[in-house]
Amino acid sequence: MEFKVNSKELEKLLTKIIPAVPTRTPMSILENFLFEIKDGFLTIIATDLEISMKSSINIIADQDISIVVPAKLTHEVIRSLGDTTVNFIISENKKINLKTDNGEYLISYQNSEDYPEIPTFPTEEDDIKEVLINGSDLKNAFDITSFAMSKEEMRPAMMGTLLEFEEEGLRFVATDGHRLANLIKHTIKPEIEILEKYVIPEKAISVLQKILDEKEVKVYMSNTHISFKLNDIELITRLIGQKYPEYRSVIPLENEFELKVKTKELLSAIKRMMLFSTTSSTRRVKFSISENSLEISAEDVDMGNFGKEKIACTYDGTPIEIGFNSQYVNDVLSHLVAEEEIIFKLHSANKAVIIVPSVKSDKQNLMMLIMPVRLNN
Amino acid sequence: MEFKVNSKELEKLLTKIIPAVPTRTPMSILENFLFEIKDGFLTIIATDLEISMKSSINIIADQDISIVVPAKLTHEVIRSLGDTTVNFIISENKKINLKTDNGEYLISYQNSEDYPEIPTFPTEEDDIKEVLINGSDLKNAFDITSFAMSKEEMRPAMMGTLLEFEEEGLRFVATDGHRLANLIKHTIKPEIEILEKYVIPEKAISVLQKILDEKEVKVYMSNTHISFKLNDIELITRLIGQKYPEYRSVIPLENEFELKVKTKELLSAIKRMMLFSTTSSTRRVKFSISENSLEISAEDVDMGNFGKEKIACTYDGTPIEIGFNSQYVNDVLSHLVAEEEIIFKLHSANKAVIIVPSVKSDKQNLMMLIMPVRLNN
Repeated sequence: MEFKVNSKELEKLLTKIIPAVPTRTPMSILENFLFEIKDGFLTIIATDLEISMKSSINIIADQDISIVVPAKLTHEVIRSLGDTTVNFIISENKKINLKTDNGEYLISYQNSEDYPEIPTFPTEEDDIKEVLINGSDLKNAFDITSFAMSKEEMRPAMMGTLLEFEEEGLRFVATDGHRLANLIKHTIKPEIEILEKYVIPEKAISVLQKILDEKEVKVYMSNTHISFKLNDIELITRLIGQKYPEYRSVIPLENEFELKVKTKELLSAIKRMMLFSTTSSTRRVKFSISENSLEISAEDVDMGNFGKEKIACTYDGTPIEIGFNSQYVNDVLSHLVAEEEIIFKLHSANKAVIIVPSVKSDKQNLMMLIMPVRLNN
Repeated sequence: MEFKVNSKELEKLLTKIIPAVPTRTPMSILENFLFEIKDGFLTIIATDLEISMKSSINIIADQDISIVVPAKLTHEVIRSLGDTTVNFIISENKKINLKTDNGEYLISYQNSEDYPEIPTFPTEEDDIKEVLINGSDLKNAFDITSFAMSKEEMRPAMMGTLLEFEEEGLRFVATDGHRLANLIKHTIKPEIEILEKYVIPEKAISVLQKILDEKEVKVYMSNTHISFKLNDIELITRLIGQKYPEYRSVIPLENEFELKVKTKELLSAIKRMMLFSTTSSTRRVKFSISENSLEISAEDVDMGNFGKEKIACTYDGTPIEIGFNSQYVNDVLSHLVAEEEIIFKLHSANKAVIIVPSVKSDKQNLMMLIMPVRLNN
């Protein structure tokens, strides 16, 4: 059978789907796209068995067929062709012949029967929820919070981001036990009442960060899967089944001392401190806080190097000396640079510190948390 | 003692010199800058014992001193400071105290006596040549030819580029035995007669490619060293002492068949062929040439994939089938893209092929050469 397609159009489609193709997998068939041609539509599917992605375009085809084609090679060949018509001739002998005006490329394909079952949305279930979300809101929430997810496989739930539907909006929580990001988007409110929790794996979030734009997204949720339907592409992911940790219990409620600083000024100073905090395992930076005075410092004991800086601030609490991992402070501040000023809420040198924007927004409520590290002096 | 310097000015200087600092060296002292303060000038020097770089700025200093400071840390601290005045206070206890308005950074230094002797230009020698070269001409010559230098330490001379002063100009030759680049810049002609050869090591060339601009460069040459004096920076390198191979003997003189193609069109097709030539060790692409007809093809035997393309050309010689390493063809063509059309001069399937621009320039004479690979059919 044969079909014709414009190379630019096909390239756009393949570029969207290829993030779902795993780069290292013991199941080599996952390194392929599934091409399904039916009723004049070419649907392209890829999966790593956790997420699956799917998108379609209109083509001129004389017959229906399902084949499995090498993802990377097909993508690169199509991408390198520029803007031209490509004629796909699919022969019985397991070869696709791609013909252009000047070139001809033979690529081996496999039967679709060998392709594994892809994660699909369990439409039969009873308690399927559906909600329409603005794509920019969703992308922004992931952009702000996803850095705090854990990379360690010890506690699988923490390798994802918690989505919690609440009365005031949709809450996003990510933590690795050392720092925590907690954001409520008041703008995301489903029409029907949903009071559920879902833990979305990291892979789905990093792909969504790439493909979300300002358009609306239809989100479908079951007990086991979540599906994001964008304009021209659908992403389905398994949910993480493990229970998300009781993050509320680590958030201190009585951090009575407030340190207010300019975000960019502190971030810039922290970056310099990181140059001096390279040798210790905790990459420690010390905050010495007293009345309207903040000095941060870091020391490289092995090399005998040392840095300290004064940062303009307002503070009227008890003087505190507290240590942090400078990398974690850097991560948190980098995700708060949209805020001109931030407030560190402190209690003592060994209690978690809360960081919030100094100006409240009616669109969202953002809170970060960092655990201190011990100062050995 | 103390001195003051503007952070932006110092950053510019350090950024220029740091390429000479080796990143991996058993001699850890080479990971430092040598700071020499004398008569109101701060001169900064770095070396990897093969090349050395040196540049100065005016500073306000109350005393002369030579110290050795950690290159990477000093560069990164100064770079992160923005635009401010930095006060260097150099104390007896081997610490530099860098003071700014808000910050203070202690960096350990070492005595300059521990710094090794840097490659310096032997000004005492008799046969020192001096020539003024346009910086753009020199950079362009290195940009076009340096890719062909060998990376293998077996034959040290081939790890450098040959500079040969001739009557028609300055010749640049680089080769790794598989391909060769040969360029004469007619525009580079010393006023006095020099008929000498110099082999410049790769490191010096890659640094020069970064720092050369349109300004004139003073080049000094001895039997052992070559020095490039730019406006504000001096680079000295040892020359490679080994004899450069007799490259002239590999250049065929009687390749009578000429194949003319558009450079970008062939390059674009070669890039697609590289997608199919991944499995064989020679990454082979086959050129099938007959009267006004060129077809190139590549095959991935393991996967059963295959690509071929027709390229518009003019040719009236004997039909030839010849194989090349597609990576080498790609390298050569990438350095010829300034030429709209190129000519492949061929004789037979096992003889070196010469590639030249189709239009001669009166400013330069450029010739590339590629060795064919065997077609096993």
